[in-house]
Order: sequence, then structure tokens, then C-alpha cells
Amino acid sequence: MDVRKSDGQREAYSREKLRRSLRRAGAGKAMAEEIIADLEPQLRDGITTGKLYRMARKALQRRSRRSAITYSLKRALLDLGPSGFPFEQFCGRLFEAMGYQVHYNRFVQGRCVQHEIDIIAERNGTRLFAECKFHNRATHRNDVKLPLYLRARSLDLMSGDAGAHDAFWVLSNTTYSEDALAYADCEGLILAGHNTDHYPLTRGLINQHGLHPLTCLNSLKVAQKRSLIESGAVLCRDLLDQPRLLEPLRLEARQRERVRGECRDILDRGKARRESA
Amino acid sequence: MDVRKSDGQREAYSREKLRRSLRRAGAGKAMAEEIIADLEPQLRDGITTGKLYRMARKALQRRSRRSAITYSLKRALLDLGPSGFPFEQFCGRLFEAMGYQVHYNRFVQGRCVQHEIDIIAERNGTRLFAECKFHNRATHRNDVKLPLYLRARSLDLMSGDAGAHDAFWVLSNTTYSEDALAYADCEGLILAGHNTDHYPLTRGLINQHGLHPLTCLNSLKVAQKRSLIESGAVLCRDLLDQPRLLEPLRLEARQRERVRGECRDILDRGKARRESA
Repeated sequence: MDVRKSDGQREAYSREKLRRSLRRAGAGKAMAEEIIADLEPQLRDGITTGKLYRMARKALQRRSRRSAITYSLKRALLDLGPSGFPFEQFCGRLFEAMGYQVHYNRFVQGRCVQHEIDIIAERNGTRLFAECKFHNRATHRNDVKLPLYLRARSLDLMSGDAGAHDAFWVLSNTTYSEDALAYADCEGLILAGHNTDHYPLTRGLINQHGLHPLTCLNSLKVAQKRSLIESGAVLCRDLLDQPRLLEPLRLEARQRERVRGECRDILDRGKARRESA
Repeated sequence: MDVRKSDGQREAYSREKLRRSLRRAGAGKAMAEEIIADLEPQLRDGITTGKLYRMARKALQRRSRRSAITYSLKRALLDLGPSGFPFEQFCGRLFEAMGYQVHYNRFVQGRCVQHEIDIIAERNGTRLFAECKFHNRATHRNDVKLPLYLRARSLDLMSGDAGAHDAFWVLSNTTYSEDALAYADCEGLILAGHNTDHYPLTRGLINQHGLHPLTCLNSLKVAQKRSLIESGAVLCRDLLDQPRLLEPLRLEARQRERVRGECRDILDRGKARRESA
């Protein structure tokens, strides 16, 4: 039996992939097997991964509200759009969680020209430059031109007086082409995205430090999340740390508690996963 | 009095610019002054450069059918679209005219990854790599990412076994940003386009070697030019050298002669300009 991926390509259905994604979403071993056994008889050849995803999510939700929470982390990152700015903030928060001090959108003079650096992250004399590439289409694949252009930028900065840096990171909410991965690996650029070694790192950090984007929340409508993002919130924890952020939404007390409850659930579950790891 | 440019910016009307473009289009000194004297009373503040261009072209056409021919070289290059392929062919013909042997779309292994090179041009042991950037909007400005990415590509090729080259060219049918020009100049990439030092070279070569794109022709309809391009013709001279190319258009004898006559006019005028230079 085949599944159809979002870019139209078909691939063989993999029980192992479904299991992994259920486990990643927080389902225990037994629950994952149970859901798989429930779902498989309902799957038809050519089912889209999107449909499969929704069925799995529903099954998870029926069994455990908590487990469903991070199933859609990929989608939550996508929902930070349409502009790239909130994703940039999210990336900055990741570096902060790793103990870096973060500066956004600084201009640095290279040997030949000036460059705008999305994120400069500094910690104990180590200095990272990072470029954040947000795309609104989940199927957008960053091709080899991206790391090539950033490599030349890194070299130009390195030969300038102010551009010294220990590493150059690229963070994207989508994937990279094979060539892009090979080139970055060869030249020592660090790529983070859905199909890189560094994405699990990102995912690990999200759970470890409670960095879930607030677009994870089911208890708010899309327009409400968007308005929160416009007022500067990016993460679920922001809504716990700064309760005032919720005020402009004029929620009823009960709904406000539901939102904050969901935020707490998300953070607690991440903490639990870290401790069990 | 101001003129409005195609990107919406205003700038002061310049008699000198109008004179230069009329001269470039083949008007003699006296004719250019005559046309300027005719046009200036008709110009209103805020006139678009497009309108100004059409008025000048009309005035030129009234005075000399021949002179109007290359006035629209910029437009002729744009009309080679919508795909980038004919522009690539046009660029290849330029290198051939300079005595190079040309290969298209070759894959060359760099140190880290393989690169597809639009044009490899070789002459007496000199080897150039060229990238052709075609855009369908005349206002598209190639930004600094383009030469940055090509610089990294050039470096990767240079460190590979097969990628030695003496220069890296970028040819575009539009313009480059200030940063792009500064970076390319600093790193020794050669940019050719509407606002580079190398564009006059291109223009010179077009006249010198009779390399006018067939999209210059007024005696054919857009659909007819497109069908010629699809069958592999790119230049006016192709229609003289290979009369068979015109056959599928099933033109009447009279119209066929008109087309070939216009082609000859264009080539003769270019030759005359070269000899007078």
C-alpha cells in the first residue's frame, strides 16, 4: 500500500514511520500499537500523508488530550507565518535557551560589502551567526544556492574586521535538498530543518526548555494566535510568564484558564519527556 | 520637470539622456537635435519613461525606418522569454562571436558538490564559466545574493579537479543592485547587464557581429517570433543564414522578403556603426 506525500510523490506505507511519529507525539508504547491496530484496516492505497496525519491525530486525541499536543510541531512552525519575523524570534529563543545572548538584525561589514545578520548569538567568547529561512509552503525545499550564498557571506564576513564568527547556522522551517546538505556538511555550515541532524536537536530543546510555539495551542483560534504573535508573543510559555499578553483578546475567565491550562500541560509534558530521557 | 521610471521612482528629465538614447538608436547628430526640439514642448511633468520612449520611437520611425531598429534592444532581450533558454542561447552566441567555443549546461564536479554550468566558453587555453539570469520583469534587480552564491560556486569548482576556470561571468537581461555590483567588483566576478560596465560591451558586440535578437523585428508578429524561437532561432542573422527557419510560418513571398529585408537593414546598420566607430 502506498501513501501520497504533500509534494505528490508516492511511497510505501511504513508502519515504523507511523509508530515513530505517534511515539514522538507522546504516545506510550502500548498506546501507539493500539492506535496502529485501529488505523491500519481503515487505510486505503494512495491515502495522503495529510489524511493519515489527521486520522492519527484524532485517534491520539480520543485517547489522551495531552499526547496530541506536540504532534503538529511542524505545522505549528509553519503557522508562525506568513511573515518570517516570528520564526526568527523563535530561533532566537532557541539560542537563548542554550545560554547564548542574542542580537537580531545587526549589520556587519565584510571585506567587500555589508551584511544583515538575522541572529548573532554569543556565549563565553563563542560567537555564532545565524540565518533564518521561513517558508509558507511546507513542501519548499531549500536548494544548494542557499548554503552556497551563505558560505560566500561567511567568507566575506570572516575577512572583514568585525565579522569574526565561530560557526554559521541556517535554520529553516522546511527541508533541504541533498546537494544543500552535502555542501553544508563539506564546508562546515550548520543546517537545522526538518530533514537535518540538527532538527532533532531543535525538537529536543523545545521539550527540554519548554519552547513550544504558541501556534501549538488548540484552545485558541487562528486569528487569536495571530494577534498574540503580532503583539510580540511567540511561545506558549510567554502566555504563562506574561499573563497580560492575553488581555487584548478579552477572553472569558473560563477560556483564559483553558488556554493557560493547555500551556501548562504542554510544558509539563516536555519536562516529563526530558526527565524520562 | 520630472520623469517617472518603470519602478515608480521619479527623476529629473535629462535632455542628455534622451539625446544619448536617440544617438544609440542610430539617429545622426542633427536628427537627434531635431527630434528633441520636436518632443520637448509635448512633455508633461511626471511623464513615464515608457511614454517618453514610445514618443521618441515614433518620432524616429517617422524620420528613418532604419534608425528605429535597435532602439528597443532592452525590450528585445525581454521578449526572448518567458523561459530563460533563448537568453542562454543568445549569451552563448555572444561568446562565440568573441571567438570562444561554447558548451551549454555541463555538469562539473566541485570539491563538495556537482554544479550545472550554463555556459562554458573556451578559447586558446582560456576557460570562462558563465551563468545566465533571465527575468521576465524589466524592473527585476539582481541582488547581492546572486554574486555571493556564484562566488561560492566558483570557489567550490576551483577546488575541484575539473573546475578550473579563468573567470566567472554573470549575464542578465536586467539590472544589479549596488551591493551586487560592489561585491562582484571586489571578488572579480564579471557582471553583464543593463547597469554594468560590461553591458556596453554586449551592445557593442551586438552591432559589431550582427547579434540582434530576432525579437527586434517589427515585420513579424509576437506569435511568429515565439514560434521561430521555439524552433531554435535566436538572432536576426539566423533567418538570413538559414532561410528554412521561416518556412513553417508559411509567409507570402512579399512578407518573407520584408522580414529578410528588415534583417539585412539591421545587420547593415550595425556594420556601418562599427565602421564609423
